[in-house]
Amino acid sequence: MPPRTTLTISPQTTALLTPYLPPKKTTLHHPPRPFTTLTYATSLDATIALAPATQTLLSGPESKALTHYLRSQHTAILIGCGTAIADDPSLNCRIEGVGGYGGEGLEGQPRPVVLDPWGRWDVSSESQVVKLAREGRGKAPWVVCMGDVGEERQNVLKDVGGKFLPLGDMVEGRGGAGVWSWKNILELLWNEGVESVMVEGGGSVINALLEPESVGCVDSVIVTVAPVWLGKGGVAVVPEERRDGEGKKIAVGRLRDVRWVPLGEDVVVCGRP
Amino acid sequence: MPPRTTLTISPQTTALLTPYLPPKKTTLHHPPRPFTTLTYATSLDATIALAPATQTLLSGPESKALTHYLRSQHTAILIGCGTAIADDPSLNCRIEGVGGYGGEGLEGQPRPVVLDPWGRWDVSSESQVVKLAREGRGKAPWVVCMGDVGEERQNVLKDVGGKFLPLGDMVEGRGGAGVWSWKNILELLWNEGVESVMVEGGGSVINALLEPESVGCVDSVIVTVAPVWLGKGGVAVVPEERRDGEGKKIAVGRLRDVRWVPLGEDVVVCGRP
Repeated sequence: MPPRTTLTISPQTTALLTPYLPPKKTTLHHPPRPFTTLTYATSLDATIALAPATQTLLSGPESKALTHYLRSQHTAILIGCGTAIADDPSLNCRIEGVGGYGGEGLEGQPRPVVLDPWGRWDVSSESQVVKLAREGRGKAPWVVCMGDVGEERQNVLKDVGGKFLPLGDMVEGRGGAGVWSWKNILELLWNEGVESVMVEGGGSVINALLEPESVGCVDSVIVTVAPVWLGKGGVAVVPEERRDGEGKKIAVGRLRDVRWVPLGEDVVVCGRP
Repeated sequence: MPPRTTLTISPQTTALLTPYLPPKKTTLHHPPRPFTTLTYATSLDATIALAPATQTLLSGPESKALTHYLRSQHTAILIGCGTAIADDPSLNCRIEGVGGYGGEGLEGQPRPVVLDPWGRWDVSSESQVVKLAREGRGKAPWVVCMGDVGEERQNVLKDVGGKFLPLGDMVEGRGGAGVWSWKNILELLWNEGVESVMVEGGGSVINALLEPESVGCVDSVIVTVAPVWLGKGGVAVVPEERRDGEGKKIAVGRLRDVRWVPLGEDVVVCGRP
């Protein structure tokens, strides 16, 4: 019997989302990188949390089930280290029928991936994602990082079957600062057998992925909008500005093939960048 | 025959909006102020224009028709002087069947109201809204202001049947600054026979109306969301932050009785604050 935390979603809703999900049969659709879905929940004032390093419940129970359904449709889910530190998230999939929630083994459970270039996340045997892996309720986490993170953290991951993935060279970002290109990160995952990845947050990861030089890596965008204003001072999803060849400010991006799906009090917008 | 600029909207769409519109028969629903609808078009990053004092086409033709339908359902429409200066807007209603667009006289045309406390808007006989009033395509504008605006501007409005409405005393706002309360402004309009008003923008007007001390004046909110990101540096609708009695940051507001209506590439969210 699945645990009480199991979530359900209606077949009507999943049918509406299907065109925006990774293809079932991987036909190397665009190697060398996985099918990449960007997903987040936002307010009407483009704010995803009331303050940095806090978790804000924005959307309703239907949207939560949606997130978990989406997780079941991807090989991996990726978050930034800020979210890992602030939320200590479970990062497994609790939709009815996946492994650990009515299904066999770890079938349908995505690989949790934490993007932590500077080794800020102090992963331990008490981290939720490690505990769930130990209990057979989720896959072991991978952590994308640069340099040496120390034997202790290496062992924490190794004990449950996870690992650190070394990140390659930086490329030059805005203002000359060194950044990793999303292309590099996604290639790294592809080489590890990740056919599809869902990027869930937080703010810096989402804003970085929406920048002109990265957004081409995104195949699908699925955003939940809650009918709420959080006000100034929160964590906002507002990408860097974009200018055309003549220096004129233009829109950063527009979704194509758009579909709006009302879901409880919220709406879900699906599209391709 | 209506002019070529006439817009149309489907009865299916208007039926979905009806619960959020002013009651047909005014029964002094909450004197002494008009039924107040807040409406604007936004991006996914809560930005309504790429830069201050510019107009950005965000939403599709269906949303434009919606705006004009909403205008036909209100006694007055109100904008801030910033929008009047930047856009030189027509502020009339071009939906099929209203006066000047297939209908008789000025039937269904709303009263344009410009909120201009400091007399910044240099209204002239060449202003769109004045020209349209002269041509019988829209009602003459009212301008809400403080103090003396000079005989010239008085005459420009008087010539087409418009007028200046003197604004009463200021109340204390954030940081002790003097501001007008929305209650005052709406009372003023009510005393002039305005039974319903639609507040259209721009950014400062919308943000001010969403503040805790004003949002109680709003009966209905109708926001169009376009599937686009405009990026940093634009005009954002992000209200001031709100804190509870213990100083903890909380959401500024949430809509009740929410309905999401997909409209072309956009979605329209209707609700009550």
